[in-house]
Amino acid sequence: MTREPLKIGVLGYRFMGRAHANAMARLPMFFPDAPEIERHTLVGRDEAALADAADRFGFAHTATDWEAAIDEVDVFYNLGPNHVHAEPSIAALEAGVPVLCEKPLAPTLEEAAAMRGAAAATDVTSGTAFNYRFVPAICHAKRLIEDGALGEIRQVRGRYLQDWLVDPEAPWAWRMDADMAGSGALSDLGAHTLDLARFLVGDRVGEFERVAGQLTTFVDERPVHDEDGGVAEYRDVTVDDAYSAQVEYESGATGTFEASRVAEGHKNDHTIAVHGTKGSLKFSLERLNELEVLREGNRGYETVLVTEESDPYVDRWWPPGHVIGWEHTFVHENYEFLSAVAEGESFEPSFADGYEVQRVLAAIERADERGERVPVE
Amino acid sequence: MTREPLKIGVLGYRFMGRAHANAMARLPMFFPDAPEIERHTLVGRDEAALADAADRFGFAHTATDWEAAIDEVDVFYNLGPNHVHAEPSIAALEAGVPVLCEKPLAPTLEEAAAMRGAAAATDVTSGTAFNYRFVPAICHAKRLIEDGALGEIRQVRGRYLQDWLVDPEAPWAWRMDADMAGSGALSDLGAHTLDLARFLVGDRVGEFERVAGQLTTFVDERPVHDEDGGVAEYRDVTVDDAYSAQVEYESGATGTFEASRVAEGHKNDHTIAVHGTKGSLKFSLERLNELEVLREGNRGYETVLVTEESDPYVDRWWPPGHVIGWEHTFVHENYEFLSAVAEGESFEPSFADGYEVQRVLAAIERADERGERVPVE
Amino acid sequence: MTREPLKIGVLGYRFMGRAHANAMARLPMFFPDAPEIERHTLVGRDEAALADAADRFGFAHTATDWEAAIDEVDVFYNLGPNHVHAEPSIAALEAGVPVLCEKPLAPTLEEAAAMRGAAAATDVTSGTAFNYRFVPAICHAKRLIEDGALGEIRQVRGRYLQDWLVDPEAPWAWRMDADMAGSGALSDLGAHTLDLARFLVGDRVGEFERVAGQLTTFVDERPVHDEDGGVAEYRDVTVDDAYSAQVEYESGATGTFEASRVAEGHKNDHTIAVHGTKGSLKFSLERLNELEVLREGNRGYETVLVTEESDPYVDRWWPPGHVIGWEHTFVHENYEFLSAVAEGESFEPSFADGYEVQRVLAAIERADERGERVPVE
Amino acid sequence: MTREPLKIGVLGYRFMGRAHANAMARLPMFFPDAPEIERHTLVGRDEAALADAADRFGFAHTATDWEAAIDEVDVFYNLGPNHVHAEPSIAALEAGVPVLCEKPLAPTLEEAAAMRGAAAATDVTSGTAFNYRFVPAICHAKRLIEDGALGEIRQVRGRYLQDWLVDPEAPWAWRMDADMAGSGALSDLGAHTLDLARFLVGDRVGEFERVAGQLTTFVDERPVHDEDGGVAEYRDVTVDDAYSAQVEYESGATGTFEASRVAEGHKNDHTIAVHGTKGSLKFSLERLNELEVLREGNRGYETVLVTEESDPYVDRWWPPGHVIGWEHTFVHENYEFLSAVAEGESFEPSFADGYEVQRVLAAIERADERGERVPVE
Repeated sequence: MTREPLKIGVLGYRFMGRAHANAMARLPMFFPDAPEIERHTLVGRDEAALADAADRFGFAHTATDWEAAIDEVDVFYNLGPNHVHAEPSIAALEAGVPVLCEKPLAPTLEEAAAMRGAAAATDVTSGTAFNYRFVPAICHAKRLIEDGALGEIRQVRGRYLQDWLVDPEAPWAWRMDADMAGSGALSDLGAHTLDLARFLVGDRVGEFERVAGQLTTFVDERPVHDEDGGVAEYRDVTVDDAYSAQVEYESGATGTFEASRVAEGHKNDHTIAVHGTKGSLKFSLERLNELEVLREGNRGYETVLVTEESDPYVDRWWPPGHVIGWEHTFVHENYEFLSAVAEGESFEPSFADGYEVQRVLAAIERADERGERVPVE
Repeated sequence: MTREPLKIGVLGYRFMGRAHANAMARLPMFFPDAPEIERHTLVGRDEAALADAADRFGFAHTATDWEAAIDEVDVFYNLGPNHVHAEPSIAALEAGVPVLCEKPLAPTLEEAAAMRGAAAATDVTSGTAFNYRFVPAICHAKRLIEDGALGEIRQVRGRYLQDWLVDPEAPWAWRMDADMAGSGALSDLGAHTLDLARFLVGDRVGEFERVAGQLTTFVDERPVHDEDGGVAEYRDVTVDDAYSAQVEYESGATGTFEASRVAEGHKNDHTIAVHGTKGSLKFSLERLNELEVLREGNRGYETVLVTEESDPYVDRWWPPGHVIGWEHTFVHENYEFLSAVAEGESFEPSFADGYEVQRVLAAIERADERGERVPVE
Repeated sequence: MTREPLKIGVLGYRFMGRAHANAMARLPMFFPDAPEIERHTLVGRDEAALADAADRFGFAHTATDWEAAIDEVDVFYNLGPNHVHAEPSIAALEAGVPVLCEKPLAPTLEEAAAMRGAAAATDVTSGTAFNYRFVPAICHAKRLIEDGALGEIRQVRGRYLQDWLVDPEAPWAWRMDADMAGSGALSDLGAHTLDLARFLVGDRVGEFERVAGQLTTFVDERPVHDEDGGVAEYRDVTVDDAYSAQVEYESGATGTFEASRVAEGHKNDHTIAVHGTKGSLKFSLERLNELEVLREGNRGYETVLVTEESDPYVDRWWPPGHVIGWEHTFVHENYEFLSAVAEGESFEPSFADGYEVQRVLAAIERADERGERVPVE
Repeated sequence: MTREPLKIGVLGYRFMGRAHANAMARLPMFFPDAPEIERHTLVGRDEAALADAADRFGFAHTATDWEAAIDEVDVFYNLGPNHVHAEPSIAALEAGVPVLCEKPLAPTLEEAAAMRGAAAATDVTSGTAFNYRFVPAICHAKRLIEDGALGEIRQVRGRYLQDWLVDPEAPWAWRMDADMAGSGALSDLGAHTLDLARFLVGDRVGEFERVAGQLTTFVDERPVHDEDGGVAEYRDVTVDDAYSAQVEYESGATGTFEASRVAEGHKNDHTIAVHGTKGSLKFSLERLNELEVLREGNRGYETVLVTEESDPYVDRWWPPGHVIGWEHTFVHENYEFLSAVAEGESFEPSFADGYEVQRVLAAIERADERGERVPVE
């Protein structure tokens, strides 16, 4: 049976566009069982930049009208800013086109709900691009937890630290605007952590039940530069620079979560720790090939280099000890998503997963506003 | 001028009794400028155990009546369980006898207030035994912060993890009883962390202003064993196994704090991190000779082995790289406290410092009960 | 000016074939200024495996006759076992075809000398594929050393530990045969370390002048399996499982080097440390995004995450903190080599560099045989 | 039965004098089963300094004549510079007085042989003060190796790095004089490492059989200061700043050893690693409470905090996670030595152990001089 390559349309051609285009390009050599695809149409607004990106990323076509583009493709990747997630993604699903949407699913819970609804109303595949689920060390961690190696889960701790906003003169960007981004460190970084926590321990502790939250903005306005590099204006920062949350799970387990864009010296320091009645584990994104595991009968954490042939996805790459990088998570994610599309199967993390995270993000914001511990609604 | 040795009376002869007795014994060799002291009277209830401890710890006398003991000594150390902190400490101060009291200052804010009041009403020296202020690496960290090396402080993060209560069959102890201990991980471990945070950044961020808190008890009752080692009964655990807190400082800086007695694999894992506008630092008690410092102009954390002659207290001990241990913090603390006593000066951390921590502990409990962010009253 | 894509011929389609094919495939997206290339011909002996690999690696043609293949291509990559390095590489150079040859350059010093001679006799580009020169953290280290940040270099320490031969029943392979491989851990792993040391400090300390060496074989014979997985025979291991060397440089600086294939628990643990009069640095391949730097005026090693835009090659990839992997070193290497080919320039590490390493390998073997410190001849 | 306290005489009142005096002072509180002792006589040349030290260290008497002192005491500690080890130690043994002598045993193999002979000729206890044998983590490591946890031992790696001589203007001291010290980094630091290696794996691999060695002096002369702090003269450095050695054990196992006093950024960085057929372990003195263990069936090194009650010596000190320091090794050593004295038993490390290390030191020097691998004679 021969099959036409899947035509891929991608909205967004910056950081995430590049990460996914690279992932697609790498599939044939390392995941030859992935469905054949064609990088078909790259969608954006700035035609010149778009043409340049399409050339670089290997897309045959460009489009400035996403609606028209959706008609032309078999699969739609929504990698735009958060406020353009809902409408095109829903339109694509309604048109029967599978969608992979970047995280967080939307700036508001309402939009996320609408997206979840659209996904539920159709059989076509959809997914939220929480790429850190596809780190081999994280997959290995999930296996250990599923196998009961940690016993009953009691405590989870997640932290995502960056420092690109330490300087008050760091320029304004859409990620600092509530309307476009939803929230700040919370939705950009916290969404990753909260999804990772769900992925790792959700089967054992249930959903997030109640949360307390604290959002803080250290720098209230930031410069917008004119073409000469001068400061044209100072624009309001309407999102948080940092958040923290205390959570309770259905099972009675608890969690603490935190993110910051002003943690000097931390570039992409995403860590998660889990404590159970039989063991513990720790993961750090900046050393993503490693997993620290405390197993029953051992006395201390064991530093496992998750690069064995038997480790998730690793047999596709290199021999033991030949470490992979951040970008590989996108390759794994694309492999799984496109395989699901080709098989007409569902994909996880789904839009429903994205929505679950959004519920928690919204609850943390609500808790902060009210100064109360609130149920996740 | 010759001076009579200060007669020291100590209430409590277990873990803390041992730590302080050892510290006193080591002063002459390493801190010859410390006032001369006499380990005079050891106070407790169990005469046999007491006699044995006095012999071991080098005390000439024992007493089961603390009131009588206070009359005999020049300085009083209150190292008993939390619920016996207030009455003897106040009595000693009223009798003009300087007091060093173990932390937390008391099980309740009321008692702590009374102790603070007693201290304020007299000129004699008093102190709360937050020994971690006397780790050289912590003193070095404080100097850096005072010197502005971290700029304006924005975020503080403290965590104290132990695992001695992971097992549900770990035996009941007074530290699990609210009346005797106040709270659990919160007052036992959290008090240390909160004091350390105050010590390090208090001058720059002011006091804790508002807090949210979450206290969790994973194991509700624990066995009390009879003399044969069988389980005589299960007694209620009325304190938390773990707490977390989100705090706001007067300056607008924020903090997150956490402790657990059920974090499998962690023995005495007390860490604190501070992020400012110019730098960051990290400390871990299990590697207490080290300080991780991110300085302006550097790109990453520098691992400083705080064992140079120029480092706080280090010139009293060994050459560079010859590491000290946990117990040395008590030696430094006793040196400072006894020197203050001899000079008739005040000592920090004072009872007022102990009370400030107690206010935060109480606020965290109150926040947890109400499910609200509350002011620190 | 338009230019025809460079036709690339590659001998070898296993581990290294895959690593270089991947590197070539990734150039257009991340190094668009690299010359255009065509993965033209893949050369090997097993036609079925070859066809499969060519399909996977994106080569249009296959060949079992390397001589014929060289006639068809513009550039020749020699990625075969060490004993097939010399003849095809020399033939290609003599035919005016640039050559990139895997390390070590040859199993014997004689062959390496012949290869160096062939390279010297022509203007076409040639290179030895010491890929670890192209780790951004290593490039950053070299810059620091060149800039004098470490002062005068006194001591170098290199170590490469693996554990795939711990088990005496691990199967025999060509890498255990002296005729095919030259030596064992020495030439396979040591060549990398010795080249890295030359690269980092060679400009400051000169060449290796005298060496002592110790080669050890812990397991003398290993099984060859038949098609059913049974042991067909035990074949002699004629190379070392581990080596160590003590070296003196022209400048008087010294070095110690070591590798092992029987260091249980170490997968690809390649570390190098340099001490100078003003500072020190440390690198570890399993954490290849990091460099530990002790700079003048600092007290401890600073952990630098070498992922800033200003770091070597990093601007081509991802934002700060988004780590790269082992394979990226091949992309950088291919970029530099192919750019040199396109410009008709020389490339480093050259065949002469490969030969210099080979001189040291040979001297270490000679020193071991004689039980003497010997000059590097 | 009452017993008179053992009268201790100590030659040397500087660094080591202080370390042992402290150890003796701490025994009663933590090792009450140790024999009772009296810090009796402190021996030295500078009467004023001696008196001051005696006062500080708690010795009742001082003496400038060691021969007379030996007559007065029950036990003799020789903590002087290496060149005064032999004569007093032998005299004491001949007088029936037990001796603990600092390491290395002597500046020359001849003197060490004489000392070993003197010890062998008497029943009184003698010992060489290799204190690192008494680190709990090292004792734990030895147990693991004895129990076969690492299988057959194949490779040992030891390294001791300091940086106090990086600066060429660091002042001259007796430790830089061959006549007084024997050798430099080799005998001062290397002796520790070689003894530790013997202690850990000697039972399994036998004695050192053959060695190669390299000794390097980077700074040939150093200043001697006059009383005003000016440079009175430059005196020759006649010992090594750094050494390295390659060794073969009787069993065929191999080792590499190294030390440096010019490794910028390293204060007291003594590490040892062992690889066997079933596992590996690593230890670092600057984190002496930890042991890294790779056990059969595990995938990575486990970081064991060796502070459990069941760990060697730890039950005498503090609860889990309450770390000890460098000085505690002396307490353990004194406890074992004095207990052996009291029981009339032999002690390890003995003078014979010290001699064995000396044989290796001498062989390494001989190997370096000859430029040959030499047998340990």
